[in-house]
Amino acid sequence: MSRDKQLITPLKEARRFMIDCFKAVGANQTHAEIVADNLLEADYRGHYTHGMNRLEKYIKFLQHGLVSPNAVPTIDKETEATALVNGNNGFGAVVGQYCMDLAIEKAKNIGIGLVVCHGSNHYGMAAMFALQAIKKGFIGFSTTNSPCLLVPTRAKKSALGTNPIGFGVPANDGDSFVLDTSTTVAALGKIEIQRRKGEPIPPGWALNKEGKVETDADIAFQEKLLLPLGGEEINAGYKGYGLAVFVDVLSGILSGSNYGPKVPKFGTVENLGQAFIAINPQVFAPGVENRMSDLMNYLRNMEPVDPNLPVLVAGDPSRQNMEKVHRDGGLSYVQNQHDTNKKLAERLNVAPMKSI
Amino acid sequence: MSRDKQLITPLKEARRFMIDCFKAVGANQTHAEIVADNLLEADYRGHYTHGMNRLEKYIKFLQHGLVSPNAVPTIDKETEATALVNGNNGFGAVVGQYCMDLAIEKAKNIGIGLVVCHGSNHYGMAAMFALQAIKKGFIGFSTTNSPCLLVPTRAKKSALGTNPIGFGVPANDGDSFVLDTSTTVAALGKIEIQRRKGEPIPPGWALNKEGKVETDADIAFQEKLLLPLGGEEINAGYKGYGLAVFVDVLSGILSGSNYGPKVPKFGTVENLGQAFIAINPQVFAPGVENRMSDLMNYLRNMEPVDPNLPVLVAGDPSRQNMEKVHRDGGLSYVQNQHDTNKKLAERLNVAPMKSI
Repeated sequence: MSRDKQLITPLKEARRFMIDCFKAVGANQTHAEIVADNLLEADYRGHYTHGMNRLEKYIKFLQHGLVSPNAVPTIDKETEATALVNGNNGFGAVVGQYCMDLAIEKAKNIGIGLVVCHGSNHYGMAAMFALQAIKKGFIGFSTTNSPCLLVPTRAKKSALGTNPIGFGVPANDGDSFVLDTSTTVAALGKIEIQRRKGEPIPPGWALNKEGKVETDADIAFQEKLLLPLGGEEINAGYKGYGLAVFVDVLSGILSGSNYGPKVPKFGTVENLGQAFIAINPQVFAPGVENRMSDLMNYLRNMEPVDPNLPVLVAGDPSRQNMEKVHRDGGLSYVQNQHDTNKKLAERLNVAPMKSI
Repeated sequence: MSRDKQLITPLKEARRFMIDCFKAVGANQTHAEIVADNLLEADYRGHYTHGMNRLEKYIKFLQHGLVSPNAVPTIDKETEATALVNGNNGFGAVVGQYCMDLAIEKAKNIGIGLVVCHGSNHYGMAAMFALQAIKKGFIGFSTTNSPCLLVPTRAKKSALGTNPIGFGVPANDGDSFVLDTSTTVAALGKIEIQRRKGEPIPPGWALNKEGKVETDADIAFQEKLLLPLGGEEINAGYKGYGLAVFVDVLSGILSGSNYGPKVPKFGTVENLGQAFIAINPQVFAPGVENRMSDLMNYLRNMEPVDPNLPVLVAGDPSRQNMEKVHRDGGLSYVQNQHDTNKKLAERLNVAPMKSI
């Protein structure tokens, strides 16, 4: 998405604005901060689809009573290494942070923690919780199920979400591997961008309602029938389909939340399921961080096909975006976001977001 | 691969032959049985690339002293939920069975077990260990690293293995979800089949040494530069690349085995790393098997694009193959396998494999 380079919003101000909005519709200070930090981190890392872009919808859901802003997660049952958590229909960001904290505590003591929750909501980018683990020196893994968009191989309709996987590993000197990958080829947002540009989408991203590969971005955006990672059957789309089920097993089947086609579209009480794993590198072979740095640096230094396009590892594009944010002195939102924010500020009677 | 329908080998006889071969080169009865059962299960399930097809190489490695047939794995360190195991350069099938047993024991007591090993060898199909967990009513997950074949997005050479993921979930009445997926689009074996047929491969499976997509199966087989799941960058090949690193973190980075480009080609002491996770469904929301059956049956009953190609779930193609084996009264090996076996029988002085 092209960003307007004229208007720069300092991170602090973007955070302040989102906190004020959440508080205006009933969230307490702590929860407002957690959700604002979650959305802010996505924008900071360049995952704009999971950043302030979501603010308006989050506010709408709160105003419609679909999410309980001050609900605190509770533990249904647990062992020293696992827990089943009820999100009590709170913010996904709050539920997720709680669950990953619990997983990290367990991993500290016993090497690994697996926490799954039901009764959750949209929790932002999956990598958020991997980053939470990395900050404590742990390996983090998280998955969430989500509303139907993915078409199982050979089927005509969708039956699974884009079901992302977040995975992070700490390396030396603050470096880290941070994977955030949906199990579809492309997010719906990417199709929307092609549509706005009036350009087609590559064959293999989406189907039309006849079950044929669609390259018209307008039709693809209307139909919302995304191909699993791999694309068509000949290119192993069934692998992405299988991985989407893997995600829903950990997130939904284990937790007793909604799953597969039972996950409703955004705009109703969702009862999403999510999974969080923390792994303590200390209980395995010494030198995990060294080996991780060695592997990442090997990959980054490989000869690229195109000298202008260096080989990256997961997390590098986000690092580049964070550097840009620092160079610019803040976040560059599109005009549309500023317009939305202006209306939100008026409607919620909060101070408008200031840009420089 | 086309199978000769004239020659049928009963499962028992295929097993007997492989056990005799392994014993002839020094394996004890127990280990010979474990490895034979591992290869046999692959053929039974239709994963021919990981079945008796590997026998000749396994025997050669044993004769060259590359694998220690009677080595027993040992535990380097452990917690109640985790273990680091040294495979002591034993059979991968033996190391894997030991590690998954250990993970299941831990999961029985505490809900989850994560066991990683170094000093292992080729362990057959990844799904083997998921099946081991399923038989005990547990969810099973396993990964292994492997010799370089996968080309990281934008790179010209390979730096990671096909790094497969095996994942299995028990459902009602003996049904189960069994995923076995490499993190490349296609296995090298699939390219070999196209080459033998004199047919091209689809664009998106492999590169040539200029880093361009190659469709000539001959060249692709020579160069061995496989694209990660997703294919080219435009189709999200970086997701498959990221998942391949995820596999190597769990398998190699955690265990202190070889990893990434350090994994040697088959034919030297490999020091592979592998990971095994068992999850006890009992510590999560009651009814995991019911929900799994419900989801799988929903998916299977979806309307297909082509009425002749029903929607499947992972594990269904294997079930179809197992039914065929039972109908046929045994396994149908290609003539080439029979020729190899004949030579092996003579060379090792074991009774030739009988077919009907």
